[in-house]
Amino acid sequence: MTLDRKMHRMGEKARAAAHALALTPTSQKNAALLAAANAIDGARAEILKCNADEIAEAKDLSAAFIDRMKLDNARLDGIVSGLKTVAGLDDPVGKEISSWARPNGLHFTRVRTPIGVIAVIYESRPNVTVDAAALAMKAGNAVILRGGSECIKTAELLARLFKTGLQEAGIDENAVQFVDTPDREAVGLLLSGLGGGVDLVIPRGGKSLVKRVQDEARVAVLAHLDGLCHVYLDHDADLEKAAAITVNSKMRRTGVCGAAETLLIDRERLVDLWPPVADALAKAGCELRGDDYICALDESVAPAREEDFDTEYLAPILSVAAVDNVDGAIRHIARHGSAHTDSIVTENEETARRFLAEVDSAIVLHNASTQFADGGEFGFGAEIGIATGRLHARGPVGLEELTTFKTIIRGSGQTRP
Amino acid sequence: MTLDRKMHRMGEKARAAAHALALTPTSQKNAALLAAANAIDGARAEILKCNADEIAEAKDLSAAFIDRMKLDNARLDGIVSGLKTVAGLDDPVGKEISSWARPNGLHFTRVRTPIGVIAVIYESRPNVTVDAAALAMKAGNAVILRGGSECIKTAELLARLFKTGLQEAGIDENAVQFVDTPDREAVGLLLSGLGGGVDLVIPRGGKSLVKRVQDEARVAVLAHLDGLCHVYLDHDADLEKAAAITVNSKMRRTGVCGAAETLLIDRERLVDLWPPVADALAKAGCELRGDDYICALDESVAPAREEDFDTEYLAPILSVAAVDNVDGAIRHIARHGSAHTDSIVTENEETARRFLAEVDSAIVLHNASTQFADGGEFGFGAEIGIATGRLHARGPVGLEELTTFKTIIRGSGQTRP
Repeated sequence: MTLDRKMHRMGEKARAAAHALALTPTSQKNAALLAAANAIDGARAEILKCNADEIAEAKDLSAAFIDRMKLDNARLDGIVSGLKTVAGLDDPVGKEISSWARPNGLHFTRVRTPIGVIAVIYESRPNVTVDAAALAMKAGNAVILRGGSECIKTAELLARLFKTGLQEAGIDENAVQFVDTPDREAVGLLLSGLGGGVDLVIPRGGKSLVKRVQDEARVAVLAHLDGLCHVYLDHDADLEKAAAITVNSKMRRTGVCGAAETLLIDRERLVDLWPPVADALAKAGCELRGDDYICALDESVAPAREEDFDTEYLAPILSVAAVDNVDGAIRHIARHGSAHTDSIVTENEETARRFLAEVDSAIVLHNASTQFADGGEFGFGAEIGIATGRLHARGPVGLEELTTFKTIIRGSGQTRP
Repeated sequence: MTLDRKMHRMGEKARAAAHALALTPTSQKNAALLAAANAIDGARAEILKCNADEIAEAKDLSAAFIDRMKLDNARLDGIVSGLKTVAGLDDPVGKEISSWARPNGLHFTRVRTPIGVIAVIYESRPNVTVDAAALAMKAGNAVILRGGSECIKTAELLARLFKTGLQEAGIDENAVQFVDTPDREAVGLLLSGLGGGVDLVIPRGGKSLVKRVQDEARVAVLAHLDGLCHVYLDHDADLEKAAAITVNSKMRRTGVCGAAETLLIDRERLVDLWPPVADALAKAGCELRGDDYICALDESVAPAREEDFDTEYLAPILSVAAVDNVDGAIRHIARHGSAHTDSIVTENEETARRFLAEVDSAIVLHNASTQFADGGEFGFGAEIGIATGRLHARGPVGLEELTTFKTIIRGSGQTRP
């Protein structure tokens, strides 16, 4: 069978599984998730050996890449508990979004339904296999998984164990399918939509993957791109909150998309805010790159180049600029930001209201760390990532974001005049 | 200036206008809509002459095409009253969608925001110029309009009159821009996204236009495709409702996407339902094409070919098939339908519940005509079309569907552990 035929056949099987899964009761989906958790928990030795062998075979991979690939017992704990968490979440399918009536007696109800077939294309983290399968399946979707070639064996094993959970619960195992060839053409076929076999593509990985997906996809894409997040310390900022929120936004974890990359400070507060904030950042191990105002004030700070303000460091580096009050902050963010997550620190409610209204980002915060940009922190229980597009989902993608809706109209014989 | 540069410049101007429009008060947007209505109302003679000249110059156009192109006083009435209607609708921007709190004291609010820059690509109907500009602008979006080359002068004149409304209300006139060249490459540039200048493309027109848009677009698309809609007369259908809903679904207007194309009848009710339903359809001037069961029962019906059940006639023709109860109807719709709009006629609540849950269409109805698939009938006041994709918007696209959302998080100094 050619790869083209094989992939299209996958799409057909996924479509059939999705039709059945859309009507599968919550209890049955939860049983599958718990059975998958047990299957993975019971196969730890096999998984760790497979993963260790794959890492040993791998060549020319960076230490960071291997770290992402590597599974250990703690990461397996995370995978198993993640499955149990998703089993405990409310099922979004069938949930009423809104309802209304019309003068002609027609009654409208908008309810959540699964999207259908979702292709998830990811890279080095084998745990994405299970996280994505669990969330997509719980929301009633069939999923086609395409993992990175370096960890394809580990990912395939995890997918196979997940499928035993489906089988135990009496769910069509084609609800989760794994592309077992490293052939890059398989990605192209998924992006073509497989002749109607794929409704949505979710890329999880580096910029080059996401760019390829956005350039080639003939179906809808939920992309996860840059998080060039800002913290703005306003004229009316509280000093203690300013230092704590800045350090946390930058340094809690520097490699996440919700990490702050640029600090903006009201010019009139530079003299009193800068020393304690800079001190707290330095103590936390953060490298600073300042604009002319910052460098004039503090000789120890390296000068920022213009491109620093457009750089997502994902590292303990922070660019800092002085701005003319909240207007200057809003302008800087409009010009340099990525519309992901931005925070204002101020005690002035009116200034906060303006920032929250005028900054056009998926997530805007007042007196809180940008690192709250996370599905778990939103109360979603689990997420598949943070969508940076403007349509369908914006911000954390949890169960509800993996559904669409339909409108049910109930009448008593109405015809349209 | 090259076309490429010109179009990119349009995107930049649209982006700037969108930033301002996102924060423009409702009253100002409404003032612009009413001023545009006045401007168009006051330029009737000029518009009708421009339109008549353009139709006179046109060559090799079908009568149907010219009918879509043609403006008269009644159609101008519709355009003017449409603007007033949109001015009277609630502004979706800033509307709260949901709110919740977390144990750490963070308060979340999800509010509607404009999408940004929307490109609308349409064909022969010049009124789309005004309808699309009005809805997009009221929802806070800048819009780039690209009309069909045959009616480009009429459409450009309408766009120019709309812009005088914007100017009178003090809104950046680049909130509405019209592509004044018939060069098809302009469409390709819009579909490229103009280097970040376009957030969403909405194609309004025939299948070849929509297909080109879906194939080439590098940005999100809200497509409007086939409406292969079904009416199913169930075992427990009321005879009178069955006849009235079937005739209305098919014959009220045959050229709209919500018109029924196929009638399904429970095999056990054929003998008593068929004669009165067929009679009512024949009286309304409908041509019938039946499957073997129908043709055996009624010699006057022409036999349907298999492809009839996959054809959107948009004409007074109806294909008819007998099915084995609601299961057969659901299977037939899953195989042949376009997931647009489908209706069941039954007095059995449980059967209705199954049909409404299991038919995976944007709009599903119980005891009501498929011709209610219309934004006006939903109570939206106005719509830009019926989206047939599964994401973002599904069904009528009104003001709310032309927005996205952001999440506002209010804290008191929270950092993430």
